[in-house]
Amino acid sequence: MKYRIGIDLGGTNIKAGVVDEDNRIVAYDTRPTDADRPFAEVVLSMAQSAKDAAAQLDLTLADFPCLGVGTPGSVQRKFGKVLRAGNLNWYDVPLRDELQKHVSTPVYVGNDADCAAAGESIAGAAKDYNNVLLFTLGTGVGGGIIIEKKIFSGGDGLGAELGHIPLVFEGVHCTCGIDGCFEAYASVTGLIRQTREAMAAHPDSLLNNLAEERGVVNGRTPFDAAKAGDAAALAVIDRYISYVAAGIGGCISIFRPEIVLLGGGVSQEGAYLMDPLNERLPKYVFGSAYNGVPMAIQATLGNDAGVIGAAYLDIV
Amino acid sequence: MKYRIGIDLGGTNIKAGVVDEDNRIVAYDTRPTDADRPFAEVVLSMAQSAKDAAAQLDLTLADFPCLGVGTPGSVQRKFGKVLRAGNLNWYDVPLRDELQKHVSTPVYVGNDADCAAAGESIAGAAKDYNNVLLFTLGTGVGGGIIIEKKIFSGGDGLGAELGHIPLVFEGVHCTCGIDGCFEAYASVTGLIRQTREAMAAHPDSLLNNLAEERGVVNGRTPFDAAKAGDAAALAVIDRYISYVAAGIGGCISIFRPEIVLLGGGVSQEGAYLMDPLNERLPKYVFGSAYNGVPMAIQATLGNDAGVIGAAYLDIV
Repeated sequence: MKYRIGIDLGGTNIKAGVVDEDNRIVAYDTRPTDADRPFAEVVLSMAQSAKDAAAQLDLTLADFPCLGVGTPGSVQRKFGKVLRAGNLNWYDVPLRDELQKHVSTPVYVGNDADCAAAGESIAGAAKDYNNVLLFTLGTGVGGGIIIEKKIFSGGDGLGAELGHIPLVFEGVHCTCGIDGCFEAYASVTGLIRQTREAMAAHPDSLLNNLAEERGVVNGRTPFDAAKAGDAAALAVIDRYISYVAAGIGGCISIFRPEIVLLGGGVSQEGAYLMDPLNERLPKYVFGSAYNGVPMAIQATLGNDAGVIGAAYLDIV
Repeated sequence: MKYRIGIDLGGTNIKAGVVDEDNRIVAYDTRPTDADRPFAEVVLSMAQSAKDAAAQLDLTLADFPCLGVGTPGSVQRKFGKVLRAGNLNWYDVPLRDELQKHVSTPVYVGNDADCAAAGESIAGAAKDYNNVLLFTLGTGVGGGIIIEKKIFSGGDGLGAELGHIPLVFEGVHCTCGIDGCFEAYASVTGLIRQTREAMAAHPDSLLNNLAEERGVVNGRTPFDAAKAGDAAALAVIDRYISYVAAGIGGCISIFRPEIVLLGGGVSQEGAYLMDPLNERLPKYVFGSAYNGVPMAIQATLGNDAGVIGAAYLDIV
């Protein structure tokens, strides 16, 4: 049996996983990142986590073709460097070289969203496809691009920012600093803003009841109210789906993938989101009547996608 | 001396050119397309045009590594097929196979905008760069994507439609059928519309004088009036440049090219367009403060780009 090993580095946890030939995670180690520690200590924990995951199968890291790491932030993959990872407070960090000091197999470093897209294209919802776009609809909108089974992250490796194409010229200010980005409308954050606006405009709507009852407005609030037939919520969801369709449609017109994957919190709504989204996509894809439109489906690997994709960083 | 040969097929003219090792066009043949003829006759003229261009150097087509053709429309490069070229009235046409019947060197077929981008990246303004975006600001907005010196035209070859990403959600209807495309605002057509709106709102502006004097409103009208200091025209150009910057900025955030080329009518405005555009681009590029922003410059090969790019279709 040939195994692979990958690490998904997060702001909160380090997760190392061993992947078997069927791309199942067969051993797992997780430990806190403690990102406020010096960088070298975090890296030492990463090495230890990988070694411990391997040890569960009586293996050492020398038994693996590589150790791949998916990290948040801007990554220069070629140099294994993290240029900037805000939630780790890392700037210009030589992650590969530092980790390599502790590890007897070649280390590869990639962006975590790229690794997730690669994981889905190797072992998840996109495993039968060569050209894939992944959109993560979470706090922000992450993008992953797979071209002929390889990660594409832009000429200098700092691209694939599908959440930051324009959507509403001179629209809502995005956390990235640009006005009117796709992310500002299609993220959970954007959806919550749209929900709050509807709550203010329609104080008698079920949205307000739900918010009061639960003590919170989150991405589920408008979906739950819409499913119960609330008119204000239905209008929020309808418009939100158009925003999502317009942004994804523009990216399809560029990349013409065979499949589009949605991950992140909002994707959990499943068919209630996907069905109207797929119905609406042709309206936003160039030449859709002739060229056809790829399906948008839910990503399937969830949190495992990053570990699996990282484990293949030597070849994706 | 090793030569290459390419054809730029247009709705009006067939242009065949022989390219030398320094990527200069050293022989040229042009003849009318007469697109209303049967397809096979147009293809015969293409073969004859290429042979005649070669004959000017006492060569036959067997002396060239390939014969490349850039054609308008949606092209399946792999199969050498034109799925749709509206201005030729071609649908599902086996261009490569038909042309190959008359030609003793391998025939390659690509989209004309892709060939233009390839030509610029081989011999023009982008020859020192591996990753390039070309935007043609003409009647529409064409896009050409070069990744590591190769044409990228999407998973199924029908993409790279950079003019059809969203720009203004629920905005002006684009000729492609989608509302609010980048093209609807950044094309010459879009600029003329914006100019006419300003003329209606400011009847005393120089825009109106120029239009009356020349008997026409075209892409030069607002630029000429702006250069003369007309306030309404300055506002049109200012906003137009923001539209262009927003669309290009979004594409930079995805592709992170080393250079951005502008072609088409509007690009003739040179520094008057490029300087403020380059000043404004950082506002629309994700992470521009850290990652930097590539320069936008004018494409240099003009109409020759398509022939030169086509001549290299076997390797780009």
